[in-house]
Formats: sequence, structure tokens, C-alpha cells
Amino acid sequence: MSNAHWIAADWGTTNLRLWAMRGAAAVHHRSSAQGMGGLKPAEFAPVLAQETAEWKAAEWADAPVVACGMVGSRQGWTEAPYAAAPTRAGTALVRVEGENVWIACGVKQLDPPDVMRGEETQIAGFLATRPDFDGVICMPGTHTKWARVSAGEICSFQSFMTGEIFGLLADHSVLRHTVQAASFDTDAFDLAVNDALAQPHRAFGRLFQLRAGALVGTLTPEVARATLSGLLIGWELAGAKPYWLGQEVALVGSPALSILYARGLRAQGTRVSEADAQAATLAGLHRAWKTLGSAA
Amino acid sequence: MSNAHWIAADWGTTNLRLWAMRGAAAVHHRSSAQGMGGLKPAEFAPVLAQETAEWKAAEWADAPVVACGMVGSRQGWTEAPYAAAPTRAGTALVRVEGENVWIACGVKQLDPPDVMRGEETQIAGFLATRPDFDGVICMPGTHTKWARVSAGEICSFQSFMTGEIFGLLADHSVLRHTVQAASFDTDAFDLAVNDALAQPHRAFGRLFQLRAGALVGTLTPEVARATLSGLLIGWELAGAKPYWLGQEVALVGSPALSILYARGLRAQGTRVSEADAQAATLAGLHRAWKTLGSAA
Repeated sequence: MSNAHWIAADWGTTNLRLWAMRGAAAVHHRSSAQGMGGLKPAEFAPVLAQETAEWKAAEWADAPVVACGMVGSRQGWTEAPYAAAPTRAGTALVRVEGENVWIACGVKQLDPPDVMRGEETQIAGFLATRPDFDGVICMPGTHTKWARVSAGEICSFQSFMTGEIFGLLADHSVLRHTVQAASFDTDAFDLAVNDALAQPHRAFGRLFQLRAGALVGTLTPEVARATLSGLLIGWELAGAKPYWLGQEVALVGSPALSILYARGLRAQGTRVSEADAQAATLAGLHRAWKTLGSAA
Repeated sequence: MSNAHWIAADWGTTNLRLWAMRGAAAVHHRSSAQGMGGLKPAEFAPVLAQETAEWKAAEWADAPVVACGMVGSRQGWTEAPYAAAPTRAGTALVRVEGENVWIACGVKQLDPPDVMRGEETQIAGFLATRPDFDGVICMPGTHTKWARVSAGEICSFQSFMTGEIFGLLADHSVLRHTVQAASFDTDAFDLAVNDALAQPHRAFGRLFQLRAGALVGTLTPEVARATLSGLLIGWELAGAKPYWLGQEVALVGSPALSILYARGLRAQGTRVSEADAQAATLAGLHRAWKTLGSAA
């Protein structure tokens, strides 16, 4: 089975990423903006057929597809029910009826309520390379997730809307006039993270200053953007303190975003490692695919 | 002059509100969605002419127009420069060149940076009825303002983006799926205000729970919406504590919004009074109009 052909799919709300796999090796890659958010249930099969047609005409003719992400939500292709934490990290799959397509189940937590879809596969992939990991995994993104992981299980987790709120404030609020910048002032970022962590109750009142400081003062877009980012990440770190305090934190995310969280955490004396999110997703899907041996 | 005719205009980013005035009495009222945000500089004069045509054909033929709000911003009709706090509350006017139109100057604060346009007129109007007021005025809205007022002056002030952030989260974030409700659970609101005030660092992590609680639990839209509102207002109250603690707070806003701030403040033992924002705006414009006697 180590040479078998299969197709890996990371099918989120806004994007579809596909890999033609031979065992653990990614041979081809495609991506498109045909995310779950823009598709009706009946559109998933034709979109997948079209996007993989080239591969299906070659060695991947009979290849199963293993997918993770919002494609498995109630509004997606086929609902892949949540496993309840604490639970083994991400190998549960649900088959799409009549298709050679398998979707990873998300994970839910009842109290306090939380959900993940896709991150459970990243955690499984991360654990494939570090099976004995005992600590906290932070997955920065639109909805950043913090997960406590031990003995191969997701024990508990919490989501923060940091990425989404940054996007709303930077692109759709009155701050959009003052935070458009190509470069990033890391000193301003560090200051803002520390301020928000030390005094989270004051961070809220500092947001409008990013507009006013440009109108009546000399605040530049570079400093304003980095300060906005730092205030929000510092705020998140203040809330997520029970997760990272005194723990090793593994950051699994895009390098551009992970580096910001790493700066903030290291300034607090936290030991941090970084792993690439896409590699973790692929490793997690590979691990899920290997379970198909008996089921397929 | 007490029977003289004039026109009052509250010209903000999204709306234009007009009153045909006889002295202090509003005789007619119109409003339209032709806010400053959608207009180019050359479009203000024709919009005003069109909206007041009926009045101009009657007793208001030669009436001056006194306006406040974003119409006086740099992107507005004519820039009415900011006065710097501490400053006398809102009677400074700038004339639009070649027109019988006068625009109220906003107020700026240099450190920490902040700005207001329109609220200075509300403060002036509020002080017209309570000239000896010494305390704090809170003006809930898109960008809620807190102002310390003493001896007829705006001493210092701070803006919070609470209203705008509520709108972005309720209508444009992932929470939009779970907070659409016509009714409002005041118990959930009170709880959320108190929680956010007591532990502002935890409020950030509770936002995503308003989505997850509906997906995996029994959270209703009524409770979720009231909780979102309470978390944001509680967060603001935590940051604005130096303003309201041990002070009398006068709320000047729409009744629907003021009542929420009043609940949160009274739960902290703060003495609160409520005044209508529109009445305060009109009273402030009236006070500004009276200064035209010599200038016009």
C-alpha cells in the first residue's frame, strides 16, 4: 500500500487545495477558490471531478479522495459528525455516499462550547512526527485554536476570532483608512502585545486611537497596522494564558502568522516550536488515508 | 431674533437630518440617507438645496443653515478645523464659502489622540439645559464617546469602537449565523456585562463560543445576541472605568442604546441620568445659531 495512489483535499470555507499523492509523497498540487462557502451540496462532486480530471486520466484513475475541513460541515457536502473531546486526534472518516471520497470528522467540546474542523487533521499530522508530544498546540488563523494534547488525544481546546476580527477591523471598519501598509513595524507590534497582555481592559479603548492618531498626530500606517495586530494577539494571549503558561507551545500555522505569535509568546518566556500548517494537514490526511486499508 | 427662521442639520457619515426651525422650536423635520460618506464635495450644495426646497419656498427663504457632524471633516463639504481639548463645548462655526451655511467645528485631543465631530454639539446642547453640570457625559453610538465636562468645558474624552464592532461581528462575522434575533435577553446581557467587566481578558475568548454554543449546545439567538452586546459593553466599561468610577454619568444617546449602558453602569452602583441625543443635537445647534447674530 505504500505506493498506492490517493488524493488529499484540504477543503475549507474559502479555498480548495488538492494534492495527487503517492503514499506519503505529494506528486502534484492544485488549488482553487472553490471553497465550501460558495457551493451547494450538489456542486461538490462536479467541482472535485473537474479539479482532479487530469490526475484521474493518469495514475490516479481509481484513487480515493481523503478530505478535511468545512466540506464536512452541515452546510458542506456530507456531514462528518464531530467527535467529542477528549478524543484521539483526527483519524475518524465518513464516506460520501456513492463516492470514493472520505471526509475527516471534526471535534467538538461541550463545556465551554467549541468546535474545530480541519485542525484535528493538523494535530494528527503534527503528532505523526512527534508521537510523544505532551503540551499545547496553537494553530493561528481566522479562528485561532489552542489545544491541550496528551497521549495522542485532544484533551481540551479553545478558539479565538483574532484573525477574523483583524480582517474586519483592518478592511471594513473606520480603521481601514489608517492601517493599509505593506511593511510592518515589529517594535510597535511587540509594544502592543505587551500592553494588551498586561492591561487587556485598556486594549479596547486603544483601537480608535489608531484612527485618531493619524488624524491629529503622526501615527504612520506601518505602526498603526502592527499595533492593531499586536493589540489583538496580546488580547488573545491574555485570554489563552491558562493554555500557554508554563507549557511548551507548538505553533502550527502559516509562517507569516506563526512568527507573530512566536514573538509574543517568547517575550513571555514561553518555549515555542514552529511547524508548517500545510505539511501538518498533508501528514494528517496521510495518516487518515492509511486507516482506509481495511475500510475501503 | 427669537422668532427668526433657520435650518438645523445633523449631517453624519450615513444620514442627513434636517429641521426647519423657528427660534428654539422645530417646525418641520426631514431625513435622508444622503450622508457625507456617499457624497463628493461638489454634491453637498445640491443635496441641501433639494432637501430644503420646500422650506426655502416658504418662510425659510433666507434662513441660514447650521450643521454639525462629518459634513465638516476633511472629506466633507468644508473642513471645520478641530478645537483642541480642553475647550469650551461646541459653539465654534466655520462658514461654507459663498453659502449661507455654517458648520460646527469638531474637537480633538492630542494625547492620547482622539477626535469628535457632532458630539461637541450634543455636549453644548446638554449643557444648555444643565449649565452647572460637572461630571461625565457618555454618548453611546457607533463610536461611543466618554467626555469629562467641567465649567462648560470639554476637559478630556475617549472613543470606543463598540457600536461599529458590534455591527461587524453581528452582521459580517461567523457569528452572523447565530445572533440574528428580534428579542433581547436582558438577563444574559447583565451576566455578560458583569463577566467582561470583572475579567476583561476572558471576554475575547468567549466570542467564538457564541457560534459553537449554537452548534453543539442549546444557545438561542436571543441569548447569543444579548451576550455579544453585553461582552462588548462590559469590555468598554472596563476600559472607561477611569471616566465613570465615582462620577455622575449623563447618557446622551438613542433611548434603545442608552438603556443598555444605564443597566451596566447602575449594576456597578454608578448614578446615571439619560438625555435624548437628538434633542441635545438640536439644542446645541440652536446655541450655535444664536452666536450668528453678530457674525451673519
